[in-house]
Amino acid sequence: MTSRRPVSHTPPSVVSADTIVTSQLEVETPGAGFFDVTADVAAFLREAGATEGTLTLFIRHTSASLTIQENADPSVLDDLATALDRLAPAGGGWTHDTEGPDDMPGHIKSMLTAVSLAIPVLEKRLALGTWQAIYLIEHRSAPHRRQIVLQFCGRTG
Amino acid sequence: MTSRRPVSHTPPSVVSADTIVTSQLEVETPGAGFFDVTADVAAFLREAGATEGTLTLFIRHTSASLTIQENADPSVLDDLATALDRLAPAGGGWTHDTEGPDDMPGHIKSMLTAVSLAIPVLEKRLALGTWQAIYLIEHRSAPHRRQIVLQFCGRTG
Amino acid sequence: MTSRRPVSHTPPSVVSADTIVTSQLEVETPGAGFFDVTADVAAFLREAGATEGTLTLFIRHTSASLTIQENADPSVLDDLATALDRLAPAGGGWTHDTEGPDDMPGHIKSMLTAVSLAIPVLEKRLALGTWQAIYLIEHRSAPHRRQIVLQFCGRTG
Repeated sequence: MTSRRPVSHTPPSVVSADTIVTSQLEVETPGAGFFDVTADVAAFLREAGATEGTLTLFIRHTSASLTIQENADPSVLDDLATALDRLAPAGGGWTHDTEGPDDMPGHIKSMLTAVSLAIPVLEKRLALGTWQAIYLIEHRSAPHRRQIVLQFCGRTG
Repeated sequence: MTSRRPVSHTPPSVVSADTIVTSQLEVETPGAGFFDVTADVAAFLREAGATEGTLTLFIRHTSASLTIQENADPSVLDDLATALDRLAPAGGGWTHDTEGPDDMPGHIKSMLTAVSLAIPVLEKRLALGTWQAIYLIEHRSAPHRRQIVLQFCGRTG
Repeated sequence: MTSRRPVSHTPPSVVSADTIVTSQLEVETPGAGFFDVTADVAAFLREAGATEGTLTLFIRHTSASLTIQENADPSVLDDLATALDRLAPAGGGWTHDTEGPDDMPGHIKSMLTAVSLAIPVLEKRLALGTWQAIYLIEHRSAPHRRQIVLQFCGRTG
């Protein structure tokens, strides 16, 4: 630890919050995996004319979920999938198994990751870090049609 | 993958964001388990006259938490509890044990699930998927009185 | 279960949502650990003149993350670190290892905790529970400079 206080912050930016813009993204997943929806979310913000405010993402499912993760090396996504498989194994002796061996692990993985995310929008852009992308995680083996509600609250135009 | 772009979205809905309505839900839990608070949250939105906007839920505790999960088959909730017990076992050799063997696992389970959720409200309703319900997860064995702050930001009336 | 409905709520508070205030917190971490940023977040709200609304925190990294946890006994944080190490061990046989053995576990720990948090602000204060503090979790062994975007949406002045 340095003696200097290791926390600092930028001067606040202030705008009127005037508008809520909502849309639903529909994503067809071919089976389990991580699907980058960052460009689709950015397109919604452009269409909405979003300038500054908060974007909420909400996935309307319990065996698919959201995460923000590294977009550079695809092996990160492979390892994240491995980690989730270890934490919620298909052969885990689950009692809920009528919908197949990948269903209950999907619910557990959803609980351990995110159903909703809130991302600030600044200067018309998502305030993501350099290496961050927004992923839909499909936990089921079969193809699914997934819905994510996108809702921007803030200043537009 | 199909050659067609597997992502589409609905035309955006735009409203003025004018109002914040806040209330605190108090839930008496009889001990560990999942407690469906969806109807209580919906009642708050009706009382608030919420039309379109974002609902934030925030639980004011560190050994109880929030999740959105399947509301159809109760065995899903049993398996979710089993999964959390495996990830944060009571006999895990934790150093923080003054408040009983269920306390530290409760903190870990809280960290792995959600302290806050953001859910869009559309056409006066929570934009939950067909099978989604909002659960308070009580991680402690004894009964507790838990507080969830509900805050709607958006259009009312 | 008592026969009485175990859920109650306070009368809603209603204010106009008029302003969004945004700032970026920069935190220099000396290496892995939990760093309490609650006072810094509270200082931002004071500077913003925040009265009532929702604060969003968003961390712009994929190997550092956010959580809200107990602020009383430091052994809780030690055990939380132990739990994360068990769930995402350094020697886990990960394929992504070019950035060191602590990198891939850091991504997994980030996925299992939070990249964004939403906290209501009431009567000019964070609606945290008595024992809750906001922590940045640094998952990397080396010192890092981390950025958290703070965005208040609601009533000011």
